[in-house]
Amino acid sequence: MTVSLLSTRDADFERTFARLVDARRESDTDVAGQVQTILQAVKGRGDDALVEYSQRFDGYALVDDADWVITREACEAAYDALPPDLRDALELAAARIRAYHEAQLPQNRDYIDAAGVRLGAIWRAVDAAGLYVPGGRAAYPSSLLMNAIPARVAGVERLVVVTPTPKGEANPMVLAAAHIAGVDEIWRIGGAQAVGALAYGTERIRPVDVITGPGNAWVAEAKRQLYGVVGIDMVAGPSEILVIADGKNDPDWIAADLLSQAEHDPTSQSILITDDAGFARQVEDCIDLQIGQLATGKTARTSWDAHGVMIVVDDLLAEAPALANRLAAEHVEIAVDDPEPYLSAIRHAGSIFLGRMTPEAVGDYVAGPNHVLPTGRRARFSSGLSVLDFMKRTSFLGLDAGSFAAIGPAAATLAHAEGLPAHAKSVELRIK
Amino acid sequence: MTVSLLSTRDADFERTFARLVDARRESDTDVAGQVQTILQAVKGRGDDALVEYSQRFDGYALVDDADWVITREACEAAYDALPPDLRDALELAAARIRAYHEAQLPQNRDYIDAAGVRLGAIWRAVDAAGLYVPGGRAAYPSSLLMNAIPARVAGVERLVVVTPTPKGEANPMVLAAAHIAGVDEIWRIGGAQAVGALAYGTERIRPVDVITGPGNAWVAEAKRQLYGVVGIDMVAGPSEILVIADGKNDPDWIAADLLSQAEHDPTSQSILITDDAGFARQVEDCIDLQIGQLATGKTARTSWDAHGVMIVVDDLLAEAPALANRLAAEHVEIAVDDPEPYLSAIRHAGSIFLGRMTPEAVGDYVAGPNHVLPTGRRARFSSGLSVLDFMKRTSFLGLDAGSFAAIGPAAATLAHAEGLPAHAKSVELRIK
Repeated sequence: MTVSLLSTRDADFERTFARLVDARRESDTDVAGQVQTILQAVKGRGDDALVEYSQRFDGYALVDDADWVITREACEAAYDALPPDLRDALELAAARIRAYHEAQLPQNRDYIDAAGVRLGAIWRAVDAAGLYVPGGRAAYPSSLLMNAIPARVAGVERLVVVTPTPKGEANPMVLAAAHIAGVDEIWRIGGAQAVGALAYGTERIRPVDVITGPGNAWVAEAKRQLYGVVGIDMVAGPSEILVIADGKNDPDWIAADLLSQAEHDPTSQSILITDDAGFARQVEDCIDLQIGQLATGKTARTSWDAHGVMIVVDDLLAEAPALANRLAAEHVEIAVDDPEPYLSAIRHAGSIFLGRMTPEAVGDYVAGPNHVLPTGRRARFSSGLSVLDFMKRTSFLGLDAGSFAAIGPAAATLAHAEGLPAHAKSVELRIK
Repeated sequence: MTVSLLSTRDADFERTFARLVDARRESDTDVAGQVQTILQAVKGRGDDALVEYSQRFDGYALVDDADWVITREACEAAYDALPPDLRDALELAAARIRAYHEAQLPQNRDYIDAAGVRLGAIWRAVDAAGLYVPGGRAAYPSSLLMNAIPARVAGVERLVVVTPTPKGEANPMVLAAAHIAGVDEIWRIGGAQAVGALAYGTERIRPVDVITGPGNAWVAEAKRQLYGVVGIDMVAGPSEILVIADGKNDPDWIAADLLSQAEHDPTSQSILITDDAGFARQVEDCIDLQIGQLATGKTARTSWDAHGVMIVVDDLLAEAPALANRLAAEHVEIAVDDPEPYLSAIRHAGSIFLGRMTPEAVGDYVAGPNHVLPTGRRARFSSGLSVLDFMKRTSFLGLDAGSFAAIGPAAATLAHAEGLPAHAKSVELRIK
C-alpha cells in the first residue's frame, strides 16, 4: 500500500478526514506584484507592452500582422488536415456540447402582477468574450470547445482567443476546434499581458466583456485582479475525482477512473470510497500495474502517492454522501447498480457520473455537460461553466396611475424612514 | 447652468462622451495590505482577533454573549415597536420582493437524449449565507430585505448577518427587517474582520458559503480577497441613474428622479438624455430649487455639480439607446409615452424603469426586483442580485451499454489525441 487506506471505524477518522477536507493543494506562488506591473503596462502602453512581454517571456517577436494573428483560413486548413476519426470525434463532441448548452438557455419573464405592476427580466449575451488557451502541452481542443461553444450558444457576437505560440507554432487540433466553434479572432499572445489586453483593449485588440479559460498562476492572478473590470469564470485549482464504488465493480475500471484524474497533474487528487476493503486493495494493485503502462505514469504516480486516498465505510449509502458533501468534489462517480439515492443525497458536487458505465472521461469529452467545473470545495457555492457565464440579466418594471397609487405611498414611507427625501419626493410628486 | 449641457451635434461630442464613459468615480483607497493583515489574523486567531479589532476600530468591547449577538427576540421587539405605517410598508416590500424572487427560481433538468444518454442539472441552495450590513447612517432596512429574502427564497438554511454596533446601538428598522426576513443569527462585528469571520469561521461563528451586502472600502476589499474561498456578490461602486425623457414630462418629476440618485453619495452620478434643450434647462432650474429644500441637499449638490450631465439629442429613439448601451448604467428610466422600443434597444442596463409613472424609488423599495444592481458599466457583463447568487448547479450524466457504445469511442479518440492515456483506458476497458 502506498496510499492511506482509511476506515470510518478508525478512532481518529474524523480528525484525519477533517484534515483532508481542509487541505489545500493549490500553489501559493506569489505573483500578484509582477502581474500588477504587467497589467499597468498593458493598460498604459498597449501593443508596445505586448511586444515587449512576448519577447521577454515567450521569446516571440510580434512584428508583422502575421506574427500577431492566426487567421480563420489557418484554422480551416488545420481542420481539413485532421485525420477523419479525430475530426469526427471533435464534431461529435461539439454537437453534443452545443445541444446540452442550448437546453440551458434561460427564459425571459414579462408579466403583470395582481397590483397591476408590470415586472420582468431579460437575459442577453455579453457583446464580446475572450478565451485564454494555454500554449504547449496543456492546449486541449476539448477545452476550447467547452469554453467557446457556450459563449456562441449564449449569443456572444465576438469571440476572441488569446494563446501564446513561443516558437510560432500552435496546436493544430486547437485551431481545428476553433474552426468548429466559430472563433472570430486568435491572437498570438499569452500570460498576464494577454489577459490585460483582453480586458483593457489595445490599439490592435478591442476589449471584451468576459474572460474565461484555464491558465498558469500568472493568468489566474491577472483574471483575479481584473475581476470587476470584466467578468471572469471561477478561479480554478487542481482537479479532483471522488469515486464511490461498491465491491461489485471491476477493479481495473475503477483504477483507470482514479488514474484519469491523477495523470493530469502532480497536484490532482483521486479519492475512492467503498464498502469493501478487499476491493480497495484490488484497485490499488490495478493502479500499480496500470501506472507502469502509462506514458503519463510519472505524473500519475506522484499525484496518487501524494494525494490519493481510499476510505472504507460500513454502509455505502448511509455514509458516502455525507463524506462527499464535505469534500464537495469537482467530479463524483457513483459506480453502483442504483445511483439514484446518491444523486438525491449529494448536495455539493461539480458534476455527478451515474452508474458503472459512466467514467469521468466521457464527460470530459463527448457527453455534453461542461468539463469546466468548480475545484477545491468550491462546488459548495459555485457551478460549472454555462451559457449564464456569457449572459447577464436586466430587470424591468412599469407602473401606471393605478398600480402607482397602490404601492407608491409605501415607497415614500420607507424613503423618509431611511433619510432619503429626494427618493420620497420623486414618489410624492406623482401621487398628487 | 452648473452642469454641462452637451449636444450630440457638438463637434467634440464623441470625445467628451467617450471621456464620460471611461471616467471612474471609484475611490482608489489602497487598503489591500491592511485587509490582508486583518484576514490573516482572523483566520489564525479567530475570536481573539475579532475582540481586538472591534475594540480598535469600533471602540466596542466584545465580552459577554450579549456583546456578541443581537437575539431574535430583540429583532421581534424592534418589529413590534415600529409605527404601523412603517411596519406595513416593510411587510409590503418584503411580500413583493419575495414574490418576484420566487418566480426567479431556476428549473432542474433531467432527460434522455437521442443517443440514450441521461443528462441533467440540479440547482441547490448553498448551505449558509452571510450578509454584511453597514452600521450607522448607511444601515438601510430595504437593503437587508433585498439581500436576505433572495437567500431565503433560494432555500438557504442558515442566514447570518454581521453588523458593527460601535456604541452598542443597532438601527431598529434593520432589526425589524431581519425579523421579517427570518435572519438566523446577527453578530455585532463589522469591517474586514467580520467578512473574514464569515469566510473562515471562528470559535463562535461557523463559516458561510456566500457573502453579500454593501460595505466600505475595507469590506469590499475583504470580499475581493476572499473570492474563491467563498462566493461573493459583484463588487459595487458608486450608484448611478440615466433618465431618458422627452419634453412632455413634468420637469419637477424628472428633477426629483435625478436627485434621488445624487442624494446617495457625492460620487453618485445622474445623467439626463432628452430631445428638448428647453426642457433640460427647466429640469436644471427645478433641481436648483429642490436641492435647497432637501435635508440631503449638500450631498446632492456635490454629486450633481461634479458628476451630473445633460445630453440633448435630435432624435430620442434613434440616439438615446446607443448612448445608454455605452454607459451601461445601473438604473435607466424611460420617461416617454411608449417605452417599448427603448426596452428592446437597450442591451446593457442593471434595471429599466418603464414610463412616466415609474420613478427609480419604487424599484428601490417596493416593486419587487432587486435593488442590488451592477454599477460602473458592469451591466455589460453582470446582473443584479438574484436567487442564483445563493444557489449552484450540479450537472449529471448517466450512460448504459448502448449509449456508451455510441459515444465512448469518440472520447477515447480525443483522450489519445490529447496525450491522456488513462482517460482513454477508462473508456476502452468498458468497450471490451
